[in-house]
Formats: sequence, C-alpha cells, structure tokens
Amino acid sequence: METKNAAGRKEKQIILASASPRRRELLALMGLTFQILPSEKEEIVTGSTPGEIVENLSFQKAEDVTARLPWTVREDGQEPDAIVIGSDTIVVCDGEVMGKPHTQEEAFAMLHRLQGRSHVVYTGVTVMCRAADTITYDTFSESAVVTVHAMDDAEIRGYIAKGESMDKAGAYGIQGSFAVFVDRIEGEYNTVLGLPVAALYQVLKRYL
Amino acid sequence: METKNAAGRKEKQIILASASPRRRELLALMGLTFQILPSEKEEIVTGSTPGEIVENLSFQKAEDVTARLPWTVREDGQEPDAIVIGSDTIVVCDGEVMGKPHTQEEAFAMLHRLQGRSHVVYTGVTVMCRAADTITYDTFSESAVVTVHAMDDAEIRGYIAKGESMDKAGAYGIQGSFAVFVDRIEGEYNTVLGLPVAALYQVLKRYL
Repeated sequence: METKNAAGRKEKQIILASASPRRRELLALMGLTFQILPSEKEEIVTGSTPGEIVENLSFQKAEDVTARLPWTVREDGQEPDAIVIGSDTIVVCDGEVMGKPHTQEEAFAMLHRLQGRSHVVYTGVTVMCRAADTITYDTFSESAVVTVHAMDDAEIRGYIAKGESMDKAGAYGIQGSFAVFVDRIEGEYNTVLGLPVAALYQVLKRYL
Repeated sequence: METKNAAGRKEKQIILASASPRRRELLALMGLTFQILPSEKEEIVTGSTPGEIVENLSFQKAEDVTARLPWTVREDGQEPDAIVIGSDTIVVCDGEVMGKPHTQEEAFAMLHRLQGRSHVVYTGVTVMCRAADTITYDTFSESAVVTVHAMDDAEIRGYIAKGESMDKAGAYGIQGSFAVFVDRIEGEYNTVLGLPVAALYQVLKRYL
C-alpha cells in the first residue's frame, strides 16, 4: 500500500542539492519540508549559452545527489519518491561569465566592472524525481537584468570590507547591504538570489 | 564647537517616521544608526498622479515627526542636526489605488484582481533635515512593475491563511511566501518592500 498525503498523492521526500544558505531560505519560504545534501561532484562547464551552462550545471548537481541517495525503506515497506533540486547561478557581463572571487582584489575588479551599468544573472534549476523504477526530470533557467549604480572606489572597498563578497558570483549579494547600489532589476528577484522560486513552484506543482 | 564625525561633518541624528518592520530592516541594511518615531497624523491623500500621492503622504509623515521632535541639547551645548525619513507605499491596478485590506474577503478580492497580470507599486520618500535654524528636504518617488502568476482560488485562500496579507497594501508581501507567485518585477525590489534604499542612499549621501 502506498502512503498518501491529504491530497491523495504519494508522499515525496524533497532534497536540496546545494549548501547555499540563501537557497535553503528560499526553499523554506515555499513552505516545503526538505533535507540538504550538497553535490560533491566537480562541476564541468558545458553549453554554448549562459542559460545552457546553468541548466547543465544544475543537472549535474541533481544527478550526482540522486545517484548518491540512500534507499531507505520504511516500516510499511514503502520507499517514498525522492525529488532532488539542483541549482546553479552565474553572472554574465559583456558576454563573460563571472564566478566567485578568490581574493579581495578579484572582488574589487569584479565590482569595478559591474558598477554603473547592467549585467545579467542566470540561474538554472533541475528538478529530478526518483520513483521506484524511473527517474524523470525538468530543467529550466531564468535570467534577470541587474543595473548597478555608479560606485566610487571607496564605496567598492567599503562594501568588500563588510565580508559579503567572497562566496558570491559577481562578488555581491543583492539581499544584503549591496541593495543601496542596485538601481533596478528586470526579472524575478529570487533568480538573482540563486533560486527562482516562482518558476520552481510552477514545476514542483506537477510533482507534488 | 560643533561635534564632527570622522569625515569632518557635523553629527546627524536619523529618525525613521514609520512603524513598518520592513522599512526598519531596510534602513538597518544601509548600516545607519537611527531611531523610530512613527507619524501619528491622519494622512490626507492629495495629488493627481500615484507618484504625487506617495510623495505628498511621505512629506506629511516627515513633516509631522519633524515638528514633534524634542530639542535635546547635549552636554557640549550642541544640538545634532536631525534627519527625518518619511515613506509611503501604494499599489495601483487599472488606475485604482489599493490600500491595506480590512478583512480576509477584502484581501481575497485584492489578490483575485492582482493575479495573472501586472500592477505598479509606488513608494514616496521624504528626507527632511532640521538644523539649528533651517529645515531643508528632498521628496522623490520610485515605482516598480510587479507581474503576478495566475493563482487559483485555493492558492489565494492558502496565502491569506498564512496571515501575511492584512497589514500590507495590495494584500501581499513580496518578501514572504508570496514570492512563489511573483513572475517578475521591473524596478527596484525594495520599492515594492516600502523603501527604495538605493535611491534613498543617493539622497542621504548629500546630507550625511
């Protein structure tokens, strides 16, 4: 006998394949109960467009975690379906992909390049569902244009000194004190944060 | 003798003329130390455009609080300049201004109208500076277009049941679980939250 929830659907176990605290907060915002199991596989950048690149990276993460999932049969002999969510974000300026800075000077160079103009943030998401004998998945990407006010060198150094640059693509986090430098965005705000929750919700509705 | 800060400027006391926890968080994000003294004056809606309306409302709040500020002379006989920040936000859909809902049915009607389409959020801000013998101020407004995914009645009722509708113009808070229904925004995200911090920062730079 299958275990069903109130809506009569089979129970699903949700796993977030990311260690990012921002993605964890956003997924929690959706009211979902989930576990965290970050992908450990080395990422291989493939794809000819930014959208393809983040879609492929999100797929690699979801696939790695799905493959490593333990099969835990419960007391009723039933294994809940597992839904794994992989996600990846890049910043693109003048067609060049920006990753995370490794030094404060790299962070300075990135922010100096991003200030006073627009760039694009791409986030790819893969939702992978493992049932008893099948694996199905959806992959999509969203982008948002972010326009940053002009920043002088003192403002850039002041921001970096706050310690919010080092673990973020493009060397900034839009949800923190960098907000004072963001002129406008066009797209879903949460795409910039690393998880386009509205688009994800539309996909998850089909699985849950 | 005037008390000067590290940059050689006269010390300023900053007051937020709003009880909104979201505005408080956003102002704190800017790294400023401030006090909260909400306006108690009954608001009078004036102006022929949404931008004018929120500018006028923010001015009324800043003016009311500035007038009620105690003059506290310190030990050094010096009165710090006071900077009062007033702000007001409205939601406009089909040219009609939406305020805060008073009942769950009003909240339902608002969200039913906003779902599946775009609307505009306007936030007006007044920065009023009281020095020894002069009052100067800046008033501006920002707008952002918010596009909401289609929501069925169950989704609307489910959102209202979370209790996030009742104290917010348009019956939603973009920073909470409503995020899953937000397709995209065009403009500054924090304008929708009630305080356009980037634009405010540009104005405050002239006063601080």
